[in-house]
Amino acid sequence: MRYNFMNDYNECAHERILDAIVKANREQDNSYGLDTRSDHARELILAQLGGAQSDVHFLVGGTQTNMTMIAASIKPYQGVICAESGHINTHETGAVEATGHKVLSLPSGDGKISADQIDAYAAAHYADGNAEHIVQPGMVYLSQPTEVGTVYSKAELENIRRVCDKYSMPLYIDGARLGNSFAVQNADVFLPDLARLSSAFSIGGTKMGALFGEALVINDPTLKKDFRYHIKQRGGMLAKGRLLGIQFETLFQNGLYDEIGRHAVSQAQRIAEGVKERGYRLFADSPTNQVFPILPKSLLTTLSQEFGYAFWQEMDAENDAVRFCTSWATPPEMVDALLRSIPYK
Amino acid sequence: MRYNFMNDYNECAHERILDAIVKANREQDNSYGLDTRSDHARELILAQLGGAQSDVHFLVGGTQTNMTMIAASIKPYQGVICAESGHINTHETGAVEATGHKVLSLPSGDGKISADQIDAYAAAHYADGNAEHIVQPGMVYLSQPTEVGTVYSKAELENIRRVCDKYSMPLYIDGARLGNSFAVQNADVFLPDLARLSSAFSIGGTKMGALFGEALVINDPTLKKDFRYHIKQRGGMLAKGRLLGIQFETLFQNGLYDEIGRHAVSQAQRIAEGVKERGYRLFADSPTNQVFPILPKSLLTTLSQEFGYAFWQEMDAENDAVRFCTSWATPPEMVDALLRSIPYK
Amino acid sequence: MRYNFMNDYNECAHERILDAIVKANREQDNSYGLDTRSDHARELILAQLGGAQSDVHFLVGGTQTNMTMIAASIKPYQGVICAESGHINTHETGAVEATGHKVLSLPSGDGKISADQIDAYAAAHYADGNAEHIVQPGMVYLSQPTEVGTVYSKAELENIRRVCDKYSMPLYIDGARLGNSFAVQNADVFLPDLARLSSAFSIGGTKMGALFGEALVINDPTLKKDFRYHIKQRGGMLAKGRLLGIQFETLFQNGLYDEIGRHAVSQAQRIAEGVKERGYRLFADSPTNQVFPILPKSLLTTLSQEFGYAFWQEMDAENDAVRFCTSWATPPEMVDALLRSIPYK
Amino acid sequence: MRYNFMNDYNECAHERILDAIVKANREQDNSYGLDTRSDHARELILAQLGGAQSDVHFLVGGTQTNMTMIAASIKPYQGVICAESGHINTHETGAVEATGHKVLSLPSGDGKISADQIDAYAAAHYADGNAEHIVQPGMVYLSQPTEVGTVYSKAELENIRRVCDKYSMPLYIDGARLGNSFAVQNADVFLPDLARLSSAFSIGGTKMGALFGEALVINDPTLKKDFRYHIKQRGGMLAKGRLLGIQFETLFQNGLYDEIGRHAVSQAQRIAEGVKERGYRLFADSPTNQVFPILPKSLLTTLSQEFGYAFWQEMDAENDAVRFCTSWATPPEMVDALLRSIPYK
Repeated sequence: MRYNFMNDYNECAHERILDAIVKANREQDNSYGLDTRSDHARELILAQLGGAQSDVHFLVGGTQTNMTMIAASIKPYQGVICAESGHINTHETGAVEATGHKVLSLPSGDGKISADQIDAYAAAHYADGNAEHIVQPGMVYLSQPTEVGTVYSKAELENIRRVCDKYSMPLYIDGARLGNSFAVQNADVFLPDLARLSSAFSIGGTKMGALFGEALVINDPTLKKDFRYHIKQRGGMLAKGRLLGIQFETLFQNGLYDEIGRHAVSQAQRIAEGVKERGYRLFADSPTNQVFPILPKSLLTTLSQEFGYAFWQEMDAENDAVRFCTSWATPPEMVDALLRSIPYK
Repeated sequence: MRYNFMNDYNECAHERILDAIVKANREQDNSYGLDTRSDHARELILAQLGGAQSDVHFLVGGTQTNMTMIAASIKPYQGVICAESGHINTHETGAVEATGHKVLSLPSGDGKISADQIDAYAAAHYADGNAEHIVQPGMVYLSQPTEVGTVYSKAELENIRRVCDKYSMPLYIDGARLGNSFAVQNADVFLPDLARLSSAFSIGGTKMGALFGEALVINDPTLKKDFRYHIKQRGGMLAKGRLLGIQFETLFQNGLYDEIGRHAVSQAQRIAEGVKERGYRLFADSPTNQVFPILPKSLLTTLSQEFGYAFWQEMDAENDAVRFCTSWATPPEMVDALLRSIPYK
Repeated sequence: MRYNFMNDYNECAHERILDAIVKANREQDNSYGLDTRSDHARELILAQLGGAQSDVHFLVGGTQTNMTMIAASIKPYQGVICAESGHINTHETGAVEATGHKVLSLPSGDGKISADQIDAYAAAHYADGNAEHIVQPGMVYLSQPTEVGTVYSKAELENIRRVCDKYSMPLYIDGARLGNSFAVQNADVFLPDLARLSSAFSIGGTKMGALFGEALVINDPTLKKDFRYHIKQRGGMLAKGRLLGIQFETLFQNGLYDEIGRHAVSQAQRIAEGVKERGYRLFADSPTNQVFPILPKSLLTTLSQEFGYAFWQEMDAENDAVRFCTSWATPPEMVDALLRSIPYK
Repeated sequence: MRYNFMNDYNECAHERILDAIVKANREQDNSYGLDTRSDHARELILAQLGGAQSDVHFLVGGTQTNMTMIAASIKPYQGVICAESGHINTHETGAVEATGHKVLSLPSGDGKISADQIDAYAAAHYADGNAEHIVQPGMVYLSQPTEVGTVYSKAELENIRRVCDKYSMPLYIDGARLGNSFAVQNADVFLPDLARLSSAFSIGGTKMGALFGEALVINDPTLKKDFRYHIKQRGGMLAKGRLLGIQFETLFQNGLYDEIGRHAVSQAQRIAEGVKERGYRLFADSPTNQVFPILPKSLLTTLSQEFGYAFWQEMDAENDAVRFCTSWATPPEMVDALLRSIPYK
């Protein structure tokens, strides 16, 4: 195979990150996230939050980050609202339920849910005469970008936040691929907006060029207390926490995090444009680093000898929707090669 | 108010049950379900299971019975399939999720799910290349009758059981109102069928004339071991367990359980017939003890001064669907009175 | 057997309670604890709390009440301090752990723990440099009377409350046999003291003459919110909640609850005095309704043909400690008969 | 500070591991542990198990590994037996309890528990007439080496395994520092013994020179099924799983894992010998990489300006027990320097 566009974690890590780890290897430091490098990384992130007094923690993985933040925020009888396609609802093997909480899924065509949907759901709950027999909506979970690469606008998030406030529900935003949302054309949601509009959000490392790791930014003061206990209990506290610190230090110095997002998104959009130019449609309109072309099965059979991609769904007897994913590591030449292998319709 | 048709637990208990409790009051007996009366009740139930070698336990309530049986049957990464309208999915405040398990809900118009739906869901799970990122379907939950009073036929249960076997999923049937399903016209599912076709099922007492209590019948030998530990841990073991024993003894002697079902269903069907005769439609076609007429709001306002019922849903600006529920305690004269208060259209 | 002193739930219920249930049988009422009888029972209990503005809920059983109150009060990373012999630590099949929380047990000779012990434990936790790797003490659980029948004095409870306040830990008191503590000679802790000194406490019905049921009194306003959701989720909400209401109405009218305690304690203390008079020692010094004589095995063999009791522990080759338990139902003649069967040493 | 002996994860990773990661950086590979490097690492470990047909999984951290393996192995009403000082009992913030299970701790002077203790505990459980009111012992957890650096002999493990078989309890051995146990003088427990005697055991990477990571070896066939679901649900599945594969490949090639253990243990024992030679006692007799000298507080004040160590406990007004920890990274010169700073008594 010449190149695998299967996902954005097929390679290891951006070389600047690896270099930093190698360089720091023999430095003795504190453990469990109390080291100098994690402290510095926290400062670098805080400096980009527009003045928010947030707490920043580093956890190993995304599933952990989601379940830890959610379980820490809600009461036993509360659940978390999310899109039907939300990662916590579909691809975390019930990690949230394993902490005792129901995921309350709302229908979603494009991976997003709206303020109106959330409002209607919560209103119906409290209007029910038997409300206490029903799981109470206690939190809202979004992904930015979503599972299918779409992006919430600032206006959408402001509306959602308003509804969350109305029902005293924290708003948590899963940013596993957050950097890609910043690189979208006409992007209007950046770190200071997230710090202002969400109760907590994560800044994904794994899918943004790190070996692994997520930064969890807690903005709501009522959710900050004793958070390190939660992280330890859920298995998210790394003994050599400095490894997370060094990676986020590197990502948030000299604009690397944004640079990685720009590269991934630009290569993905080159694929999207190329596919459309060649006469094919896209299954979903993703402005980020995931592209969902609908291609003839016969062509896919040929393509698959040279390029990896993910099967998404069958469209009809002749055509499938598939997903191509780009990352910090995608060589532009491989995008060229991919497009050359797709003939004009 | 002359009579409240709100639900089937508005009165306390059938007098024969109360009499038995009063009579036994000063008998000293063992505790926690190891008493002579519970033993006898177990024998009486076993004798009606068509020869099945089941274990019978008595628990206090339905939510407890459901969560205890489900949590005892599946692995941490497994969930339980049920109809979207299933009681565990809608009206138990996430009790199943509180034990760590996702409820996997399937769409359902009439409260039932089909063997084909279950088969398709399980097949899709195992066909997924990332199956281990997704909650595994580990059990099937049905209610007989369902939340909207419909009843599975023997053929339907046989098909479901076949699919359960295909995927090694236990089949659990919640019989909170089980006796009513036996009293349905053309009923073809009785206790021996449930013992043969389900891994476990409950025989509801609370809604069938008992003060409280559910009998849990475990047919699958692999689910029997140490079950009393589960009951104790989930809070379902009554110190004075004889209270459950005495009640189920009474219900399963001299045909009382069936008699209660027949009475409740016949009174409900009188309401259904009377409503149709008067020119009104029914929202759902329930052959059991719940009736769902669609009536003009103006008429409901008048009715509500004399009779209780449950609001179900608005149909249009002029009409609502409502629910009338009957029980062992419903006096036929009150059904007469209710029907007299509904004018011909 | 002439009489079984095995425990205080060998008989069913005080006849006044049964009479009230029988009398109310056909009254139609609301369900799930929202009925008129539960409302009245709540008023009766509130009226005896010395002016406290507590919330009163009725749950079916003790294990449920304990796990529901504890799980509702603490954070995922917190545990509950209790005596090693505490019921939640020894005889609830890990119900508290099943809600995700560690039971933090402290050594105890007489079933009690002291303010100093609790203070030292909490102080050590917060002094530990790795505190977040350790379960945080988040609540204190006591029983009044304790598992071995001893009773906390007002001074002891005041000291414990002071320590709880110091570390912001709610204090929960399990009163499964609460009424017996009021009947103790020199008793100085009554309902108003419990309402003032505890964050929540239970008033046991099951072991105090009811068929079943515990009243849960929540004094701390921060623990009151949405509590009915907790009860429903943990399976403690009875459909025919009036059954709990009627029982507690009866217990808290005309002094029945106190009367039951006085009867049980006086009969037990007659046994204690009689045993000592006959030259035998007591294993524990319980002023309530449990008596722990140390008797020759040979004598026990004879006694056991006429009287039931619980084996407690072997003392030496010739003697065992055993437990005799009395209740509302214990006939004084049976105490006479028991004592007549124990010869002077 | 010249050198920090605080713990064995003060530095990052053995350089051979880092080199391998750097070299493989741009190789595209599968994710979530299904990559070629993890496959190879599994083969390398399997080849050292003496022919056992075990399953090998790689997880990120120790707490995760412990809670995932334990929660996967036992039923809701079962608990896990461990030494009072066991890591799961003391330093994992109740992670096991958060999965719903009680930790059943046994007293232990030297970090070990004996076959006799376990046998007595389990026997007492099953002898109890109220066993189902008590958490059932369902598994045994040991650490090799223990929290205080002691090591189980083969005879001890064989006896424990015999007791585990008697009560059908899986035996799980936490090998966070496993390699150090192999380097002990007169060591007689090696990988094939662990594969034969335990149901599952972990091979720690974090404290043995890796950046992070634990290999989990499951020997008991009944515990193998669907284990990857468990790992994913508990947050232990790394997207770039190859990072774990590469590290364990490196550790299990050319004897690196053993080499690291030998280095750490030999440096620690040099400290132990030196301390004794200088006239000081050791608090515990650890033959592995942790040394617990009892030193004058005044001397410790001086030492602490040049060397890091962990405070263990106060012995008397003048002396403290402290812990020095060595690792793959400890330079022998620093041990020399440390010893030079400790004057002869």
